[in-house]
Amino acid sequence: MRVKVLYEFKAQPNSGELSINANEILTVNRKDVGEGWWEGTNQRGEVGLFPAGYVEPLAPEAEVVANSQQSSYDFGDGDWGEDDWDDDDDSQASNSQSNYDYYPTSNSGPHPTSATTPTSQLAPITVSGHPSKAPQQQTQQTVRKSFNRFSTFVKSGGEDYILGIKTLKVNENDFIYILESEATFKWAPNERPSDVSVDKPKKESKMKGLKSYIAYQLTPDSTHIQVSRRYKHFDWLHERLQDKFTTIPIPALPDKQISGRYQEEFIEHRRTQLQSWVRRICRHPVLSQCEVWQHFMTCAADEKKWKLGKRKAEKDELVGASLFFAVQPPPMSSSLDIQTVDRKMDQFNRFVSKMDDSVKLLYITAQDQSKKFGGPYKREFSKIAHSLHTLSDAFAFSGVDGQPNNDRLNNAIKHTSDTYDAIGRLYLEQPKHDFGPMCDILHEYKGILTAWPEILQVHKGAINKKKEHQKMLDEGKIDDKSVAQINQRADVVTLSTMAEINHFQEERVVDFKEAMHHFLTNQIQFYESIASKLRDTLNLYDF
Amino acid sequence: MRVKVLYEFKAQPNSGELSINANEILTVNRKDVGEGWWEGTNQRGEVGLFPAGYVEPLAPEAEVVANSQQSSYDFGDGDWGEDDWDDDDDSQASNSQSNYDYYPTSNSGPHPTSATTPTSQLAPITVSGHPSKAPQQQTQQTVRKSFNRFSTFVKSGGEDYILGIKTLKVNENDFIYILESEATFKWAPNERPSDVSVDKPKKESKMKGLKSYIAYQLTPDSTHIQVSRRYKHFDWLHERLQDKFTTIPIPALPDKQISGRYQEEFIEHRRTQLQSWVRRICRHPVLSQCEVWQHFMTCAADEKKWKLGKRKAEKDELVGASLFFAVQPPPMSSSLDIQTVDRKMDQFNRFVSKMDDSVKLLYITAQDQSKKFGGPYKREFSKIAHSLHTLSDAFAFSGVDGQPNNDRLNNAIKHTSDTYDAIGRLYLEQPKHDFGPMCDILHEYKGILTAWPEILQVHKGAINKKKEHQKMLDEGKIDDKSVAQINQRADVVTLSTMAEINHFQEERVVDFKEAMHHFLTNQIQFYESIASKLRDTLNLYDF
Repeated sequence: MRVKVLYEFKAQPNSGELSINANEILTVNRKDVGEGWWEGTNQRGEVGLFPAGYVEPLAPEAEVVANSQQSSYDFGDGDWGEDDWDDDDDSQASNSQSNYDYYPTSNSGPHPTSATTPTSQLAPITVSGHPSKAPQQQTQQTVRKSFNRFSTFVKSGGEDYILGIKTLKVNENDFIYILESEATFKWAPNERPSDVSVDKPKKESKMKGLKSYIAYQLTPDSTHIQVSRRYKHFDWLHERLQDKFTTIPIPALPDKQISGRYQEEFIEHRRTQLQSWVRRICRHPVLSQCEVWQHFMTCAADEKKWKLGKRKAEKDELVGASLFFAVQPPPMSSSLDIQTVDRKMDQFNRFVSKMDDSVKLLYITAQDQSKKFGGPYKREFSKIAHSLHTLSDAFAFSGVDGQPNNDRLNNAIKHTSDTYDAIGRLYLEQPKHDFGPMCDILHEYKGILTAWPEILQVHKGAINKKKEHQKMLDEGKIDDKSVAQINQRADVVTLSTMAEINHFQEERVVDFKEAMHHFLTNQIQFYESIASKLRDTLNLYDF
Repeated sequence: MRVKVLYEFKAQPNSGELSINANEILTVNRKDVGEGWWEGTNQRGEVGLFPAGYVEPLAPEAEVVANSQQSSYDFGDGDWGEDDWDDDDDSQASNSQSNYDYYPTSNSGPHPTSATTPTSQLAPITVSGHPSKAPQQQTQQTVRKSFNRFSTFVKSGGEDYILGIKTLKVNENDFIYILESEATFKWAPNERPSDVSVDKPKKESKMKGLKSYIAYQLTPDSTHIQVSRRYKHFDWLHERLQDKFTTIPIPALPDKQISGRYQEEFIEHRRTQLQSWVRRICRHPVLSQCEVWQHFMTCAADEKKWKLGKRKAEKDELVGASLFFAVQPPPMSSSLDIQTVDRKMDQFNRFVSKMDDSVKLLYITAQDQSKKFGGPYKREFSKIAHSLHTLSDAFAFSGVDGQPNNDRLNNAIKHTSDTYDAIGRLYLEQPKHDFGPMCDILHEYKGILTAWPEILQVHKGAINKKKEHQKMLDEGKIDDKSVAQINQRADVVTLSTMAEINHFQEERVVDFKEAMHHFLTNQIQFYESIASKLRDTLNLYDF
């Protein structure tokens, strides 16, 4: 299958990704990579992964071929039954659009974690299906709409919300409260917080062993009822959360790994990553209370109930900007000061950009160290071990074997050689304890930080509308009441964004404090155990 | 000056050496490199060092040019006065042959430490000056001489000694005693052992500052009188010892370093190397008692006395195989058993070869680690430090600076960044404490091990003579008395070699025990101080 590139994408070095340029033609080699990635070959023969959403098929008949290829992977009943969810064909879900009606209308679409292009560009095709409401110039400018119908602000329905074009009656159960405390705005805490443990990953199979997958066992401490979830379920949940929450960056799931899928170490690593992801949702005052999450973590092995909850989540009206209708701000004496808000948001925007850069840099460093510990560093110690071993081999040949000191020396050097080999093995194992976990938390933050610019863009859209109408009021083109309503709605967006920023900042301090503490503790243990091993071998030279 | 290559020489990788092949033409760029090395350019334009003894001048007039060039470096009086000895023109001594009559007749000649070609091949030109005594076939075969007049055995005078062609009356003061103890033969210990400290290297200058050099202060604990010696004096002593002792491997002096000659660190490093070299001579029961050594370490600032002793040393008749006349073996009931001796020497020969390989390997490894510690490893820690610094920079921008935990986290991460920089600096400094000293001791052993094959070759020559005459006796071609004399003299060579082997083995065990102990102690301190630094920064995360 050949595709044409719609948007530029810059590959990260050594990531297996392929840089692509608009209008370039690629040959798709694999669609079963997962998470919105495909593998392809460009016209220079370079092979790599690229975001599936950045390309379009070259010819219609090509799609037919692609679909028939897909069916060969598809053993399911064509519905969302438990049985269709398989690690082997995760990407089928994203491709066979007939089953996944939330996909084409999604404002996030395939969401490559490290893609630098805003996701708003990912699926512009969906915008054409969006009812295009009057970009014509109106004399009464109350509902002046943005011309940029590709902006997330517009796409998410933020503009319609601010301008009061759309209204929605929200059930009190779904209210999301914002509190004011010490001049900051916070999400009201979850009154019934629950922790969920992710454990006992099990390899399960179906179709008489034809297909196998890993199921993770989740146990909320609220119910103590274990539920079994696969990566695919997490992926679905992730999409739903991304659709639903316009102002909340949804942490990225662990990357889909292509090789070593069923190896114990990979599975255990993914378990710890999913555990961390789940805990992050649990800690979030809004996410942890939403229905789809509750459904995900409590619905046990009852397929009917599962499907019901799933369909309900997919039909949820409180998604995107509509969710603002559910937000209940604290009582306020006046509308927020535009300049103060602008200043704070600008600062945060620049901070997010700086933090994104530094997190990416630290991530690269940590990944690099992980690789070096297990590769070149380990080999250096093997070299030292080998050189010492060669020396003790030569000494064994000295012809003075009877002399006790000669034998003791020889024995000691051999032991020292073994010690350096053992230190080499420590290096091999060490990234699991320090740089690996650091990579994991940085990966989560990379995902979160990638989401922020778009969230801030939605907020910017809202505040711009507020400014425009303020100006029109100053010019006498609009009445107080309309402005007050727009201000109130724009403030809901601002307060939601601020509440989330506040949550983010609190989490950030705790997360990095813990991450650094864990990292350093393990680094200390590492160097201490090297010293301790060396001390053991040093003792052998006391003769 | 252009020269023709006589013997192949293989350069060690990254040593600055140049591989040369027989009959190749080189252009000599520098002769003032020292220790028998010259710098030249080959016809492919490659530049590097090669052993000066491996080439011959291409045309006689070229030498004239070379000599006139030398004079431009020579500020001295043409004699061996203290003033001529300068680090800057060490190699002048080796090149201006008129002053150095020991050089052309030396059996060792320029002695590149790591050259794999036996030094017997270095200066075959000297053999032609050697009185060629009767390689004609004689009917009475008592004094059948070797045809291989290039062998060290012949060149050192070993053959003449064994065959009784030469005799020498030795003063009792010069006797060298061998003792038998527990079935091994040892040199009689030095009854008045003395330790010599090498310290206070001083930069001195002469010619109104035109020339400057480093003088090391040596103080023997026997006299407590400090003497001042320069590298050049050591070099002279080294040559004298190599000439004199046929069965004793003289440890190599520290390599002459071309750059950074007057830098403090280099000077201090050379001081420790010279200290180690001097201690090795002090510990040697034979070397520590010889006259030239006594002269070297006790002759204070009395130029006349110095020159007298120097000339005496140069005229010493007890050099090479002649020294065997001075060796006093223990009383023995019968001649040594040829097979037992053969077996022991074969074993030792193979051991020396294996040890040589392993010492070279460990040396390369230790040098490599030294470089990596100060280069790439240090840089890795700087990278980690930089990444963390970037993160703390970003965090300083968070806009929540008021929050105590945010500030504490930021402060902690900044401190951790500094800590990794400090660890990087530890890596930079560390080779001085572990891999560096290991390189030093291995360098000494490389020199010693290079000398052994030739010593064993001299012994082999002696024992072969013993075998030949035994065979002739069995065939009735020779009388008992002649054989007994040859056996006695061959046994002196064997016993001297065995005594030295015994000394070598004892030194080896002590040296490597100490070297490993020192190395490991410093490795432990290193890893412990890393852990300790990390523990200090970890404390900052307890908030």
